[in-house]
Amino acid sequence: MVLIPEVSKLSRSAFRRLGMTPPKTPDAPPARLSLISRHLAPVYPINTPYAVERLPSTVDTSLLPRIQVREITTTTPKMSQPAHPTLLIPGPIEFDDAVLQSMSHFSESHVSAGFVATFGETLSMLRKLFQTTDPASQPFVLSGSGTLGWDLVAANLIEAGEDVLVLGTGYFSDGFADCLRVYGANVTELKAPVGTKPTLSEIEKALSEKKYKAITVTHVDTSTGVLSELKNLSALVHKVSPDTLIIVDGVCSVACEEIDFDTWGLDGVVTASQKAIGCPAGLSISMFSGRAMKAFENRKSPPSAYFASMKNWTPIMQNYEAKKPSYFATPSPQLVHALHTALSQILAKPVAERFAGHKAASDKIKAAIGALGLKQVAANPDEQAHGMTAIYLPEGVKGAELLPILAKKGVVFAGGIHKEIVTKYIRFGHMGVSVLDPTRGDIERAVKALEEGLAELGYTKS
Amino acid sequence: MVLIPEVSKLSRSAFRRLGMTPPKTPDAPPARLSLISRHLAPVYPINTPYAVERLPSTVDTSLLPRIQVREITTTTPKMSQPAHPTLLIPGPIEFDDAVLQSMSHFSESHVSAGFVATFGETLSMLRKLFQTTDPASQPFVLSGSGTLGWDLVAANLIEAGEDVLVLGTGYFSDGFADCLRVYGANVTELKAPVGTKPTLSEIEKALSEKKYKAITVTHVDTSTGVLSELKNLSALVHKVSPDTLIIVDGVCSVACEEIDFDTWGLDGVVTASQKAIGCPAGLSISMFSGRAMKAFENRKSPPSAYFASMKNWTPIMQNYEAKKPSYFATPSPQLVHALHTALSQILAKPVAERFAGHKAASDKIKAAIGALGLKQVAANPDEQAHGMTAIYLPEGVKGAELLPILAKKGVVFAGGIHKEIVTKYIRFGHMGVSVLDPTRGDIERAVKALEEGLAELGYTKS
Repeated sequence: MVLIPEVSKLSRSAFRRLGMTPPKTPDAPPARLSLISRHLAPVYPINTPYAVERLPSTVDTSLLPRIQVREITTTTPKMSQPAHPTLLIPGPIEFDDAVLQSMSHFSESHVSAGFVATFGETLSMLRKLFQTTDPASQPFVLSGSGTLGWDLVAANLIEAGEDVLVLGTGYFSDGFADCLRVYGANVTELKAPVGTKPTLSEIEKALSEKKYKAITVTHVDTSTGVLSELKNLSALVHKVSPDTLIIVDGVCSVACEEIDFDTWGLDGVVTASQKAIGCPAGLSISMFSGRAMKAFENRKSPPSAYFASMKNWTPIMQNYEAKKPSYFATPSPQLVHALHTALSQILAKPVAERFAGHKAASDKIKAAIGALGLKQVAANPDEQAHGMTAIYLPEGVKGAELLPILAKKGVVFAGGIHKEIVTKYIRFGHMGVSVLDPTRGDIERAVKALEEGLAELGYTKS
Repeated sequence: MVLIPEVSKLSRSAFRRLGMTPPKTPDAPPARLSLISRHLAPVYPINTPYAVERLPSTVDTSLLPRIQVREITTTTPKMSQPAHPTLLIPGPIEFDDAVLQSMSHFSESHVSAGFVATFGETLSMLRKLFQTTDPASQPFVLSGSGTLGWDLVAANLIEAGEDVLVLGTGYFSDGFADCLRVYGANVTELKAPVGTKPTLSEIEKALSEKKYKAITVTHVDTSTGVLSELKNLSALVHKVSPDTLIIVDGVCSVACEEIDFDTWGLDGVVTASQKAIGCPAGLSISMFSGRAMKAFENRKSPPSAYFASMKNWTPIMQNYEAKKPSYFATPSPQLVHALHTALSQILAKPVAERFAGHKAASDKIKAAIGALGLKQVAANPDEQAHGMTAIYLPEGVKGAELLPILAKKGVVFAGGIHKEIVTKYIRFGHMGVSVLDPTRGDIERAVKALEEGLAELGYTKS
């Protein structure tokens, strides 16, 4: 790990406690260089020995030798997606042309000025998506599946033997609980019946019985389409158990459900690239509050993972955001470019518009499903996600028969995954370009395919 | 985790020991379905409830609705890489057009028949690259940086308190040792002076003093360009400490240095996508022997990581290779497609030719560097890697001055990273298309740029 002390927010004692060598300049200003650096000239000083392999921004690229150039790409990406069935599962989703184009970016050094700027801007853009302006908030973008976010929480914020309250909404909250246990947490699961979420009074009761280091909530449980409300939940936790960290699994909610990180006082949101953010899979994306980072610094034991260690990654993320190259493990420049493109598209409009767009599409879909006489796994409208719908199959219709019929009609839905009802329902994902670009017609085609497919299997609305 | 018992190689007792529910059909044949499946008809039965969202292979895609189709890609990819400096660092490397094109693959379900076939073939191709035909060998491809491979070893093959001998060759063996310690291993480092590797007699002595669960060797330490010899090392370990697992960090060696997994009796090789394999960063790639997998099964404690857990991933890898969809965490279809393309290109010729091609290019580069009067960090020709060269700077020449000059000439080299000599040397990566495609002229241009750059800084051969 290459540590640039100036931008670290860890105290000297925290460094020692975590088994790290404290920086040699402890009195350097802890100011967020990332914020300052935006106002500096874009010529980056060569400040680490590891980082000198970068192209100065003063280089005229027109003078560079042409390497395997058959056609110069223009700023408007020319992209072609061959014919393929529309992917309407709850992630991965359909991707925008420009995002896919970014995946093919030519090879760059992970510490080049160009890539460092791209990665730094990406981290800063995440602050806007999560609606946090608190400079103590810390974003992370790591190569990995969304699941890696659970390790990040379990191995860094929780120590062996500490109590965590997991709100149980299905397959994915079960997974989070499993992960926490692997790293030694003492997990209490407050489980709700399938298709619902724990009530605030149940949560208040649980919080009053034990002092929890953290509470975890799966914002949208992808196995059921149940949406957990965060605003009142957070207010409750802050009131009755103010020291408890509030951790959100936002894998199926970030960029399609409102998340007001600062206002609601959240401490951690972990997500993945391939759902509503609309970037191919392969990135674990997360945001932690200053309070969560302080909890990490105050650990008595070192983090219990290596690749998923905040000790290893925090200085790297801070350096990238300050536009300074540094290295712990090689990031994926192509995936980060794609994420940069996706976030640039998302932030071109107010995020509130994006959430409203997903809600409007979801309302239409749920109305259409109701009109077909179908029931949702999440029965209560207040508990229904806006980026996906879990639909109970009519009596006599098998998912294993219906889904291939839909696929032949060019629409890919997902099967069930919640163990208690696995064969009884299907899942329809509606996030990103499929709902926000009306010219595609994805949703209308999907609803029509569902109606026709059910009819082909003999279903008629009773 | 979705477990398909038929293809699991874990024993029933191992399942229980690892805290897993044993499969319901313990007497199912343990044969490698992946090998058999190649001879079966390409229509995949719908055999998991999670996996039905796939397009039957009988679908005529010409009948599918066209989605955002502006141009149909052909089997010969049409790709354009804009002008950019040639990346000649020890990874990421320059990528082939077709590989980059695969990164933009349209969105697919991670459990669709098409993607499952691609992932399954990718895993099978890795067996050929690593030269293992033993069906007990187990490949893994996970979203993550190459560093994640260290976690895979440390959290699954080693238990807390077990002894591991780490052969110390530089920055990267130090990192592997750190990772092992995080998961509780009792690490002994046998360190060699900078630019060399531990000798066989030193290793024999170390092995005779303690019984080690595993020995780790960094095949090419990217910080020094030192190549560790594996054949005689493995023979020694098998002779004097036959129970010790032989684990190779092959991040900077797989696909450019010979690795004869079965013949040499290796137990684990971990690598990454972005070096000699020639696929963008974002994948941890590894191969473990049947003996290593048995050591995993025989653990007394559960694996000490979650995302990096073989318990979670082994059945998934086995299912994909058997062309059966299953799910633990979402893989990256785009990166796996790119890896599939890269491996298809590599395996189109005998791997021995590929290793010989890298050696021939390396010999030329090292001769040219010698002719410039420059010395390598790895002084002994037998200890010099074939995919990179670490070059000491002449007296008075600073890397921070030389590297930007090279960048202006369109060639990107890397700075130093080994803490003892960090400002005294630079690194020149020569892997993949840059050395195997002679029409590019990358190497000649790089050597010329180095010569000119040194001259501009006042260097003359003494």
